[in-house]
Amino acid sequence: ALDASAVVAVVGAGAMGAGIAQIAAVAGHAVTLLDSRAGAAAAAIDGIRAQYRKLADKGRMTAEAAEAAGRRLSAAAGLAELAGAALVVEAIVENLEAKQALYRELEGIVSDGCIFGTNTSSISVTAIGAALKRPERLAGLHFFNPAPLMALVEVVSGLATDRTVADTLFATAAAWGKTPVHARSTPGFIVNRVARPYYAEALRVLNEGGADCATLDALMRDCGGFRMGPFELMDMIGHDVNFAVTRSVWNAFYNDPRFTPSLIQQELVDAGFYGRKNGRGFFDYRDGAVRPAPREAVAQATPTDIVLHGQSAAAHALADRLFERGIACTWSDGKDGQGDDGRIAEAGGAVLFVTDGRSATQRAADLGIANVVLIDAALDHASATRIAVGAAINAWAPAIGAAIGLLQAAGFAVSRLNDIPGLMVMRTIAMLANEAADAVNQGVCDARGADAAMRLGVNYPRGPLEWADRIGLPAVRDVLANLARFYGEDRYRVSPLIQQHVFAGKNIHD
Amino acid sequence: ALDASAVVAVVGAGAMGAGIAQIAAVAGHAVTLLDSRAGAAAAAIDGIRAQYRKLADKGRMTAEAAEAAGRRLSAAAGLAELAGAALVVEAIVENLEAKQALYRELEGIVSDGCIFGTNTSSISVTAIGAALKRPERLAGLHFFNPAPLMALVEVVSGLATDRTVADTLFATAAAWGKTPVHARSTPGFIVNRVARPYYAEALRVLNEGGADCATLDALMRDCGGFRMGPFELMDMIGHDVNFAVTRSVWNAFYNDPRFTPSLIQQELVDAGFYGRKNGRGFFDYRDGAVRPAPREAVAQATPTDIVLHGQSAAAHALADRLFERGIACTWSDGKDGQGDDGRIAEAGGAVLFVTDGRSATQRAADLGIANVVLIDAALDHASATRIAVGAAINAWAPAIGAAIGLLQAAGFAVSRLNDIPGLMVMRTIAMLANEAADAVNQGVCDARGADAAMRLGVNYPRGPLEWADRIGLPAVRDVLANLARFYGEDRYRVSPLIQQHVFAGKNIHD
Amino acid sequence: ALDASAVVAVVGAGAMGAGIAQIAAVAGHAVTLLDSRAGAAAAAIDGIRAQYRKLADKGRMTAEAAEAAGRRLSAAAGLAELAGAALVVEAIVENLEAKQALYRELEGIVSDGCIFGTNTSSISVTAIGAALKRPERLAGLHFFNPAPLMALVEVVSGLATDRTVADTLFATAAAWGKTPVHARSTPGFIVNRVARPYYAEALRVLNEGGADCATLDALMRDCGGFRMGPFELMDMIGHDVNFAVTRSVWNAFYNDPRFTPSLIQQELVDAGFYGRKNGRGFFDYRDGAVRPAPREAVAQATPTDIVLHGQSAAAHALADRLFERGIACTWSDGKDGQGDDGRIAEAGGAVLFVTDGRSATQRAADLGIANVVLIDAALDHASATRIAVGAAINAWAPAIGAAIGLLQAAGFAVSRLNDIPGLMVMRTIAMLANEAADAVNQGVCDARGADAAMRLGVNYPRGPLEWADRIGLPAVRDVLANLARFYGEDRYRVSPLIQQHVFAGKNIHD
Repeated sequence: ALDASAVVAVVGAGAMGAGIAQIAAVAGHAVTLLDSRAGAAAAAIDGIRAQYRKLADKGRMTAEAAEAAGRRLSAAAGLAELAGAALVVEAIVENLEAKQALYRELEGIVSDGCIFGTNTSSISVTAIGAALKRPERLAGLHFFNPAPLMALVEVVSGLATDRTVADTLFATAAAWGKTPVHARSTPGFIVNRVARPYYAEALRVLNEGGADCATLDALMRDCGGFRMGPFELMDMIGHDVNFAVTRSVWNAFYNDPRFTPSLIQQELVDAGFYGRKNGRGFFDYRDGAVRPAPREAVAQATPTDIVLHGQSAAAHALADRLFERGIACTWSDGKDGQGDDGRIAEAGGAVLFVTDGRSATQRAADLGIANVVLIDAALDHASATRIAVGAAINAWAPAIGAAIGLLQAAGFAVSRLNDIPGLMVMRTIAMLANEAADAVNQGVCDARGADAAMRLGVNYPRGPLEWADRIGLPAVRDVLANLARFYGEDRYRVSPLIQQHVFAGKNIHD
Repeated sequence: ALDASAVVAVVGAGAMGAGIAQIAAVAGHAVTLLDSRAGAAAAAIDGIRAQYRKLADKGRMTAEAAEAAGRRLSAAAGLAELAGAALVVEAIVENLEAKQALYRELEGIVSDGCIFGTNTSSISVTAIGAALKRPERLAGLHFFNPAPLMALVEVVSGLATDRTVADTLFATAAAWGKTPVHARSTPGFIVNRVARPYYAEALRVLNEGGADCATLDALMRDCGGFRMGPFELMDMIGHDVNFAVTRSVWNAFYNDPRFTPSLIQQELVDAGFYGRKNGRGFFDYRDGAVRPAPREAVAQATPTDIVLHGQSAAAHALADRLFERGIACTWSDGKDGQGDDGRIAEAGGAVLFVTDGRSATQRAADLGIANVVLIDAALDHASATRIAVGAAINAWAPAIGAAIGLLQAAGFAVSRLNDIPGLMVMRTIAMLANEAADAVNQGVCDARGADAAMRLGVNYPRGPLEWADRIGLPAVRDVLANLARFYGEDRYRVSPLIQQHVFAGKNIHD
Repeated sequence: ALDASAVVAVVGAGAMGAGIAQIAAVAGHAVTLLDSRAGAAAAAIDGIRAQYRKLADKGRMTAEAAEAAGRRLSAAAGLAELAGAALVVEAIVENLEAKQALYRELEGIVSDGCIFGTNTSSISVTAIGAALKRPERLAGLHFFNPAPLMALVEVVSGLATDRTVADTLFATAAAWGKTPVHARSTPGFIVNRVARPYYAEALRVLNEGGADCATLDALMRDCGGFRMGPFELMDMIGHDVNFAVTRSVWNAFYNDPRFTPSLIQQELVDAGFYGRKNGRGFFDYRDGAVRPAPREAVAQATPTDIVLHGQSAAAHALADRLFERGIACTWSDGKDGQGDDGRIAEAGGAVLFVTDGRSATQRAADLGIANVVLIDAALDHASATRIAVGAAINAWAPAIGAAIGLLQAAGFAVSRLNDIPGLMVMRTIAMLANEAADAVNQGVCDARGADAAMRLGVNYPRGPLEWADRIGLPAVRDVLANLARFYGEDRYRVSPLIQQHVFAGKNIHD
């Protein structure tokens, strides 16, 4: 790590640059802030000092520390004043030529030992480095917004980056209280790549008529444990921005079908429905608009013939929830072998399974059982407040009602989807894990880094690979393989990393 | 529907605009026709009135009705004269900005209740609407050329289109004597999307050396029941136009391999062989050029050992045709179980099957039968005048001759293809049905709408989904799945809609 | 063939044009050389004459022949001087418009019987011909650099090319001592299409962490028998050039995943690491840089319990090599049926197989054998000096050591790869054969032409289709099918030509 006595320069005094300066000064560095707009650096420093005072008022730092950190910040009038920096962090406009010009000029000013950390979120670190005489001293140092609050820093090595430079930036970010992860310069780095399925699967389910946006959002929150559903999140990000990122990652991966955008995104952009920012997106944000409620099954009678099967976490969670609520059920002794097909429960003629990536109708046909009802994966079946179900096309309404009644009796709000394979939470988790696995397989990051990045960079409730391990890697492989078989698309191919681990009988995190 | 007393304005007095005005005036509306070219609207009205007189001369309408309809047409000198219209149909140049500008200006002129119907064939209705203050009042109203004769109207809802606006246009088109179908604004709407495989499969078979253009055209006409074969049809449309549409749909669907253009199209455009319009395309239209005849097997002796198998429509049609022609044959009693493999006939050592999407050589290998001969699907095996056959690579020439002799004795002209999986008619029908199913699955239209669109918009002899039901949906699924297995390409993936119906044991039209 | 008395004109006096002129004059033709740069043609002729003298000095031609050939060359001052040519070969800049303009002007100068041969390597012959009144007289005549030394000439027919024109060029090239092959005008013709997997598979293995560049290069040389490894070859070609060709072929094939470029190529170009030409590529060519050595297993003890299995060429080669070196081994009598799973050897608990496209870990799981060790394909297992191995994840280190010891005792340098399916040589050969088969299947060339093109155009040690026949076409099919299953990507789909031949039990070259 850089010594606390080392001078850190930050170029670009926007939200990201100011945030990074704020962090570095707290860590003890003298920080020089520079912005091409006159007065911007000084104004940003005023803002940072106000932040420190607020933090001191809230007791998050001492008044002395706030005062001292504030004093360590100074505004520079030009690049020449950055000569003494040991590290120059760049947080200017996202433009390759601008970043190259900045670093090229800096190369003639700073010492040989000075290292460069670009905060780019989308430009190849390798390409930025190509402008330098010594590209080995440049790496990505990608903070997330708001930088003072978000723990993740992606330390991105370009093709020419010296490993010791990346290691120094890694250690420095750690010393600043962040959680750095190493990444190889590839499109989207870690977070902006691995997160694509969070949007893509939701758009896919919507486009195939699985359910409406409000229902799918509610499932991802109340069952998947995510802070925001994919549609409200895209509405917040803005479809102009999100569609551009989607297209850019897709193109950068040579139109890999994993990253194919959705026609719906194109429609929203064509319509000028950019989301919250201009009043319409998936949802209507105009004055007086009423937010639609998630689809929810009407209350069904509690079945009196509930039988639970097998040793799965889902079955046990169901049993506990029913027990807590005083609902009578029996546990199959397994002697009739009926649990061998993976069923977790029966009631009123319906047979319940956790989705394995087949549609309920396919599973009904494969098993020769008419009344198949599938439930979705969850962050935790013991505490989820909502659950999605899908029923086979030929299932009888009373049987479906019994299955819903069982789940309602166990305390779930039940959202019935059309019979989409993999339902909503399961297919999203599986594809997130698949993408994380591919990033690991291609040497972009390691498994712990991928999980940390998603937890800390976009607040996922659990790292995708850890989640896959917990569901059971063979089960996740099956979900993906069944989706691939059903859709017949390369999009759902299983990552080599997952396959190899399943063949070897290992978890990803072993 | 609009009341007959409502004024209809049509902007653009080309062939489509004039045709639409002709229809609306007959239906009783006062019609205002406007064109930016001076005199064009008046000239078009003269032409429409001449049409009416011709129709009256032919007894298709009374002289009074012709006179009255003619009087209901008037030319407008500018947009301001459209202020009283209840519906403005736009049929101007296919250019997004021009259409947006027109409707934006109209918004300031017409009443709040006026609705807009764009006749665009290829531009996103959503994108056109984005220019409006009230995009909910715009929908697509897509007529087919020539509008007075073609029954189909696609009523296309953009993202912001009000459902009641689409419903009004739908009812109005019906009141005008047309067959409207609802569509969601997506690339190609219904017809220009679902029709892609008609060209694509033919190009594919040609590129793999299945047969020459004249043979494949003849098969699609004489066996498939289509009015024109795909190659002569492309030559008529023009390869510059057809290749541009192909590329545009492919790009709009994010390079979905279902829509991948053919290298042959690129070659024709590169060569400047645009089709009929400039004398060369797949065929040579220059003076003195001789149209090549379809490939046809020379007459073979009628085999004396014909045995028919099973209960398929193809076997029964064969039996009837042989019986009508006094050809001796026996019907297998099925006791030896030989019909269980799907064979429809045997003669001279050859075993005949209807193609299931495997090549004859693969089927021979799978079944352990050397002399496998496959026949193609047909609009109706009872009345088709031509049939394609494919034989396994290792089949003996005398056995192949016997199979051909059997089919010739039954009255078929026989065109032998190289051993291409799915032959020509079957793979085309299967892919048309697959594309129609996907449109339905993605909520673009319903199944009846898809079928009606293809029958009425491009004169298909049968709707693709009805056709698939008649062949048997499991058989169509098998054809597609076998093509997918043989080629290993996402292009031949089976639509979720077809799969789900097969799993549930249902037809599409139930 | 053209009569030796016919005048040949060559336009463009660069390396290719001069080389072609040199060949034609030796063959007896009067050759007129033209270049738009003043003096360039004369200078080129001086160079050619010097070449002739050198050849005479080396005894490759007589002094009289050298003198005579030199006298047959003359420089033209303008196109008008080409009026008497029977053949005009164009070797100017790779630009469609320039070539079209040249031939269009020539059409007004030369006789009706004059034929045109363009030396383009990348432009559609059909597109060049589109500029001509009589495109039927133009074909591609694609020499390889250096033209006097490389035997291959691709004779490329555009859509409008007259077959007799192509036949004349074919016969003429043969009369000039070359080996011509017919090709249909399609992207990359034969060589630049079929060679793509040589780079693509290596980049793929690198990107998945199979091994480092030096190791993979060494395997392709020392085991595959290629003159240069893929990485050193790309470094020599230059990544700017090679990436542009890769992208161009990929785009021309409508983004067929077979041709998808690698992110690594983009990174190298982004970094400005173009290869040898500017000092850095996969390897470092700057002063003082040390070329990394291939990964090689440290010497292991020779196992004392070697058992060989089956009748494969690999097992026999192993047996011979061990015998030659006096290493004791026994040959399984096959009575226990253990050789039925395809194993070729056992030692110290390890079971060795030649890769079939599954990873060692998958094969271990499928067979229920922990200590699976796979070896790679080779040009000839009897003479290869190096071999790649891959071991199952759960294989025990001592067993892996025994397998390596066995191979070392047999005289192989052993390079252990991570457990990549298809290892390096096998997957490359399989994909080269697959691409060649597809070219044949689509009528681009015939099987002998494809093989000759790769042997003579890029010095492959064996034609890919002949190689596939020798490995065994079913085995090659299995490798591809297993890769397709493992990766789940259309990229590894098996060519219809290979499948049909396997179904029919035939070799490609039968």
